[in-house]
Amino acid sequence: MRLTRAGEYAVRCVLYLASKGAGTIGNRKQIAAEMDIPEQFLGKIAQQLARAGFLEIMQGARGGLKLLVAPENLTLLDVVEAVIGEIFLNDCVIRPESCQRSQACSVHLVWEKARSQLRDTLREATFASLQNKDSCVIPLDRER
Amino acid sequence: MRLTRAGEYAVRCVLYLASKGAGTIGNRKQIAAEMDIPEQFLGKIAQQLARAGFLEIMQGARGGLKLLVAPENLTLLDVVEAVIGEIFLNDCVIRPESCQRSQACSVHLVWEKARSQLRDTLREATFASLQNKDSCVIPLDRER
Repeated sequence: MRLTRAGEYAVRCVLYLASKGAGTIGNRKQIAAEMDIPEQFLGKIAQQLARAGFLEIMQGARGGLKLLVAPENLTLLDVVEAVIGEIFLNDCVIRPESCQRSQACSVHLVWEKARSQLRDTLREATFASLQNKDSCVIPLDRER
Repeated sequence: MRLTRAGEYAVRCVLYLASKGAGTIGNRKQIAAEMDIPEQFLGKIAQQLARAGFLEIMQGARGGLKLLVAPENLTLLDVVEAVIGEIFLNDCVIRPESCQRSQACSVHLVWEKARSQLRDTLREATFASLQNKDSCVIPLDRER
């Protein structure tokens, strides 16, 4: 029960773009290098984030990734769910037909509560609030 | 980011045993049938729960699974983590070396908070509290 690599890389990619300010075009090679994202992964993630309307993929020699949403309006939940799909923790919460017990099951209620709390916490974290520590986007070993 | 089948089955297995009262020996075939757990899966899960000290596997013709912990002292967190390991949501929370940014990363703090809330919610749910609805252990379609 944990975030996929794709989810982690998507968060890093948006962290990078958000740190550069809205409208800046981030160079793909640079994002991959600075944020430790395998390049082939970054391409796929960028497509998912573009499909969700969070960034634009600019083609050409001076192309790259451009954040379309202001960091204060973009949350960790938005970015994570754009890549891994809606968080639900247990199948029964989102697909009641997956368990015949769902309707009357008290465990189901616990999973619903847990899911709701998790999504609220990720929703509260905007990429503007995550910029408070600049070091977040610089690998520690490169600071030394 | 969701509970594995093994985690789900472990919860169902303990729900069954808890509903029968402490000390009762649950028949494996019956547990598998009533709780919709594939039999081969139940054996593996029982071993994991036994290793965690939550139940005893009784061999022989009248053997089966015996719950060793009172339902009021056994939580959803205990059972889930006995089977899927410690919940951490994101690698960086439990293995700081997996991300060079962990120490200074504000996203890391959000994952820590989310993880803590999730574990607290699962810890509050004892198997005694989950017994409030008997229907929880009876598939809905069999009630009709």
